[in-house]
Amino acid sequence: MTVLKRYLGVFLVLILGLTTVCFTSCKQGDKPGNSNSQNKEQATGDMGVGDGAQAIAQARGLTPKDVEAALKTYVPTGKYDDYLMFASGGHSGQVLVIGVPSMRLLKVIAAFTPEPWQGFGYGSVETENILKEGYMPFGEKGKLSWADTHHPALSETGGDYDGQYLFINDKANARVAVIDLRDFEVKQMVKTPNLISDHGSTFVTPDTDYIIEASQYAIPMPIGEFAPIDQYQEKYRGLIAFHKFDREKGRIVEEESFQMELPPYWQDLCDAGKKVSNGWVFCNSINTELATGGINEGNPPFEAGVSQRDMDYMHVMNWKKAAEVAKQPGKTVEIGGMRVIPLKTVIEEGLLYFIPEPKSPHGVDVAPKGDYIVVAGKLDTHATVYAFDKIQNAIKNKMYEGDDIYGVPVLNYNDVVAAQIEIGLGPLHTQFDNDGNAYTSVFIESTLAKWKLGPPYNEGDDAWTLTEKIPVHYNIGHLVCAEGDTIEPDGKYCVALDKWSIDRFTPVGPLHPQNFQLIDVSGDNMQLLYDMPIGIGEPHYVQMIKADKLNPWLVYPEVGFDPGTMAVDPNAAKAGGEKIVRQDGKVEVWMTAIRSHFNPEHISVNEGDDVVIHLTNVERARDATHGFGIDGYNINLSIEPGESDTIEFVADKPGVYPYYCTEFCSALHLEMMGYLLVEPKK
Amino acid sequence: MTVLKRYLGVFLVLILGLTTVCFTSCKQGDKPGNSNSQNKEQATGDMGVGDGAQAIAQARGLTPKDVEAALKTYVPTGKYDDYLMFASGGHSGQVLVIGVPSMRLLKVIAAFTPEPWQGFGYGSVETENILKEGYMPFGEKGKLSWADTHHPALSETGGDYDGQYLFINDKANARVAVIDLRDFEVKQMVKTPNLISDHGSTFVTPDTDYIIEASQYAIPMPIGEFAPIDQYQEKYRGLIAFHKFDREKGRIVEEESFQMELPPYWQDLCDAGKKVSNGWVFCNSINTELATGGINEGNPPFEAGVSQRDMDYMHVMNWKKAAEVAKQPGKTVEIGGMRVIPLKTVIEEGLLYFIPEPKSPHGVDVAPKGDYIVVAGKLDTHATVYAFDKIQNAIKNKMYEGDDIYGVPVLNYNDVVAAQIEIGLGPLHTQFDNDGNAYTSVFIESTLAKWKLGPPYNEGDDAWTLTEKIPVHYNIGHLVCAEGDTIEPDGKYCVALDKWSIDRFTPVGPLHPQNFQLIDVSGDNMQLLYDMPIGIGEPHYVQMIKADKLNPWLVYPEVGFDPGTMAVDPNAAKAGGEKIVRQDGKVEVWMTAIRSHFNPEHISVNEGDDVVIHLTNVERARDATHGFGIDGYNINLSIEPGESDTIEFVADKPGVYPYYCTEFCSALHLEMMGYLLVEPKK
Repeated sequence: MTVLKRYLGVFLVLILGLTTVCFTSCKQGDKPGNSNSQNKEQATGDMGVGDGAQAIAQARGLTPKDVEAALKTYVPTGKYDDYLMFASGGHSGQVLVIGVPSMRLLKVIAAFTPEPWQGFGYGSVETENILKEGYMPFGEKGKLSWADTHHPALSETGGDYDGQYLFINDKANARVAVIDLRDFEVKQMVKTPNLISDHGSTFVTPDTDYIIEASQYAIPMPIGEFAPIDQYQEKYRGLIAFHKFDREKGRIVEEESFQMELPPYWQDLCDAGKKVSNGWVFCNSINTELATGGINEGNPPFEAGVSQRDMDYMHVMNWKKAAEVAKQPGKTVEIGGMRVIPLKTVIEEGLLYFIPEPKSPHGVDVAPKGDYIVVAGKLDTHATVYAFDKIQNAIKNKMYEGDDIYGVPVLNYNDVVAAQIEIGLGPLHTQFDNDGNAYTSVFIESTLAKWKLGPPYNEGDDAWTLTEKIPVHYNIGHLVCAEGDTIEPDGKYCVALDKWSIDRFTPVGPLHPQNFQLIDVSGDNMQLLYDMPIGIGEPHYVQMIKADKLNPWLVYPEVGFDPGTMAVDPNAAKAGGEKIVRQDGKVEVWMTAIRSHFNPEHISVNEGDDVVIHLTNVERARDATHGFGIDGYNINLSIEPGESDTIEFVADKPGVYPYYCTEFCSALHLEMMGYLLVEPKK
Repeated sequence: MTVLKRYLGVFLVLILGLTTVCFTSCKQGDKPGNSNSQNKEQATGDMGVGDGAQAIAQARGLTPKDVEAALKTYVPTGKYDDYLMFASGGHSGQVLVIGVPSMRLLKVIAAFTPEPWQGFGYGSVETENILKEGYMPFGEKGKLSWADTHHPALSETGGDYDGQYLFINDKANARVAVIDLRDFEVKQMVKTPNLISDHGSTFVTPDTDYIIEASQYAIPMPIGEFAPIDQYQEKYRGLIAFHKFDREKGRIVEEESFQMELPPYWQDLCDAGKKVSNGWVFCNSINTELATGGINEGNPPFEAGVSQRDMDYMHVMNWKKAAEVAKQPGKTVEIGGMRVIPLKTVIEEGLLYFIPEPKSPHGVDVAPKGDYIVVAGKLDTHATVYAFDKIQNAIKNKMYEGDDIYGVPVLNYNDVVAAQIEIGLGPLHTQFDNDGNAYTSVFIESTLAKWKLGPPYNEGDDAWTLTEKIPVHYNIGHLVCAEGDTIEPDGKYCVALDKWSIDRFTPVGPLHPQNFQLIDVSGDNMQLLYDMPIGIGEPHYVQMIKADKLNPWLVYPEVGFDPGTMAVDPNAAKAGGEKIVRQDGKVEVWMTAIRSHFNPEHISVNEGDDVVIHLTNVERARDATHGFGIDGYNINLSIEPGESDTIEFVADKPGVYPYYCTEFCSALHLEMMGYLLVEPKK
């Protein structure tokens, strides 16, 4: 009786707590604040700077510029950022989601590396299977549990971000992951056949028909094939993969994907044509010297051998035509289970042309109208701009200066170049704004350079002129500007992705964070606003999208929802339907979670039993996530409101193992637990 | 010849780049900026608020309070934060390092979960061995790769943070990790015998003699022992472990550690006495009802059963005496390889006393002078304060109200209580400032309450009075105030660790970030300054230390440094000493890394060979970290300047596998690669 009374008391307390939260939540939820000027109604009381501000600025030694920067980046509680950045996590293997202008890290999405907070690879059958998709073609020996994520690509419609999907590559093992932006979770991982290493990935065609992945370092094909390094020219090959994406399914369809064999140059970086150049893809390359290194054998090291020639080759490829050719009988060979167009056919069909590009080219970026391709050589001082119409004209009229050693026609540099702009020492990547400006990262100088595109963006003396440079801290690699990869860039903000931070932040040991520097490009002069340390992974590239283009779920649409199928799991545990079924060495459990208990709370099994748990979070309140960890069994799930997951494991450790909610959910969160009782073998 | 010319050219370029960086670095490095008023010389130009500020505030809809908050938290480029917070990463298994007042995430330290960016558990022998130390006592079956980190504890000298070490527990598997704050890396992991789950951990004694770890959920001892749940009262036990810490070695010495058997209550949370109460430890407990749940069998669920009684027991333990008793022959039994003082002896020796504490007690916090212990019941509305001198008097005079069912003497509540303060619904944890104030998190209300301690902190009517409450967003668990756990708290800042964020941030899917809210407590009224989303793990508790108490290394002290031994590895690869040695199925490589090449660049092995690579980063420049990833082999290292690591793996996959630098290091970073050539078995 006291039990029951107390029990009711407990729930009263909980409901009180819940109501408090829900009331506030709903009130705020109805008008999500926005940090920009369109949402003044969110601000309470008078606007503007009060008397306190001056004193604070003085006391903290803030200059007027500091004060401006502070006010341009501060986002008050309950107001939202205007943009989201999706940053690769580099060799953390993950994806970072960052708000702009606040530069706050909103989420680290587990992409390739197992992550227990999100329950990614810690017992849930769905995520374990996704990780297995990404194994090397050697079975369990091929297990991979990290990645070097490089270039995130938001899905596009008509060359503009549509906010539906995010793709991300793994340079270290040549893989691609698909993230659904409804729940910000990975749905698929593809280990690309014949590729061991990529860099020109991921980039999408303007309607996301294909996800592009070009090789970094050449190997003999397929993976597992051996050839000594002195057979590099004959046996090693580069490759470009075109992964067919099915928007309805939200999956890459490997059966409809294809690849093109390329010379064993390092294809490095790519960008897809858009608008007038839609249907084409442009990749630069280095190591057209076919250097094979070997400093330990007295040869010049790669850094020298790869940098001998003054010119390498931009790869100009007709992917639309290639997709047709790949469907024709006899035009492809099957290698590693994938349709590959052999280099000979690639050349015969006119799918590939080369254009000389100067001094260790690295960045290749297509202008918003698709009319120019900007290339920067990391040992150069220029940005070199190629005109797509000139390229097409040269191809049409076969204006070749010759063939490379593999027979690929090489267009004449002077026939296709539109301009060269003196930028500074070590230019890398270029982004664009809505006003005809280009922004190029300059690595060796540690600067960001702003310059004007030519006609039709700018006419006369303005065209192709460098207008401004500002220092960044330090060693800028990529940069991103708001929607800077789309047909309609926004300008407003650019972010410098600085690889070194050195002395910018309070020291935290020999391993330094990177530094994302937010720069205001809305005015006449660029203004540095904010230094954001990146202390998890080394982001390589970023895309920035208007926040209002995204429409993520706040909870799963229905109770019993399976994030794998993005539909209700017919076998999901239901409230009232909790049960434990035992049959010949298998124990199957249908379990529910709700504040503040699991049902069942006791699971008795025998050592060696195969245990399957179907677990549903039956909550509907936003943020009412439960975790499910089993002590000692290396299992943890994160089940968001409505989500249903399945765990399977062998009870191979005898004894008594508590399981509990690992996500702080209520006043009685600590009491949300149960016991897995594993009776030892007699 | 052209090769050589070009080679020189490359180095010229690199040296240019390096110089640029170094110049800037050294200039700034000499006077690291600080964000507080003591460092005005760092600010350039005039101080204060310029004309632009008003317009920006208007345009962005910022109130005067918003503007003040922005200026109090903004830290300009190159200036440093005043405090560092060390936050547990919850079930991410990691530790977060955050700057205050900027609330920027400076680093995620890989503590228990393998992390490739830091090369933690991705092939380096040192880190793989640390992870193995943390396995369950079942060999490979006992492998663990996640944790639920809860309570970080900074090492103390005389009850004050000394900035040398950080300790962190794993609630999910009852483990403790030791982090050295010279390089911010984990040096040791201990799987605690006899404990499967902890919560009262980690807490250190005032001079860091012992690291305290108390159980959360009771089990039969040792781990692996089985007893059905209906034998809970007889067979299940709680436990408190005292891990002996050797400050010189920087390691826990398990041979000198000991444990005390406790009743199977859930010991939950602890705090060590300090100053007058030094030598004692206080842990609260829940489930003195000995509830065993079983909702699926028609029993009241844990959340009800555990909450039946109005009073549970604070555990008052004499650890100094216990350490002596543990050394005496016959006073301990060995369980799971650990010296355990049986409950009977614990009682006989006067090592444990109980004190009634009201309504699901959760927080237990010792006041700065060690004179009061503040307990809050999560189903209560009060903070209950106990006086240490009254407790000592009651123990001395055996003023017991009786014994619990296990024979532990229970002191009389009224003899030891000093005060009860009406706080609000669902009070949890309490922190302190330098002005006699206490700050208590109030979970169900979602508020932070400020109140005045009694004598000697405050006299007369001021004593024990609630002075202010502010709302937090939402569901605050722990809170932290600057040095709030020490004998000399700083005040200035408190941070609310909100478990739910709900509508505070731009939506990023059903899994919401947590919300760290920075609160200025320096004025007459508390002021909310900043919302920091936590999108990686669910931090449970945090400690905040003055940044200038830390003195981390910027690079490793010498080339060839082994982070495992914190000394030069005599077998480390040296510049000029690179070599490959082959002997009966083993290939041993001594390799160096420097911008921008590895030496050697070719490693030829046979399928099945055992490959050992000793890799040294011979750089001395700050931030000149190199990564070392081997494609397809699931190997990645992070080697900071001077560091030497060793990798060992079996070449079980035939073919050609590039290895490369995974940390962007120079203009020719992409060229910093080599080939692992694995010749297939004939």
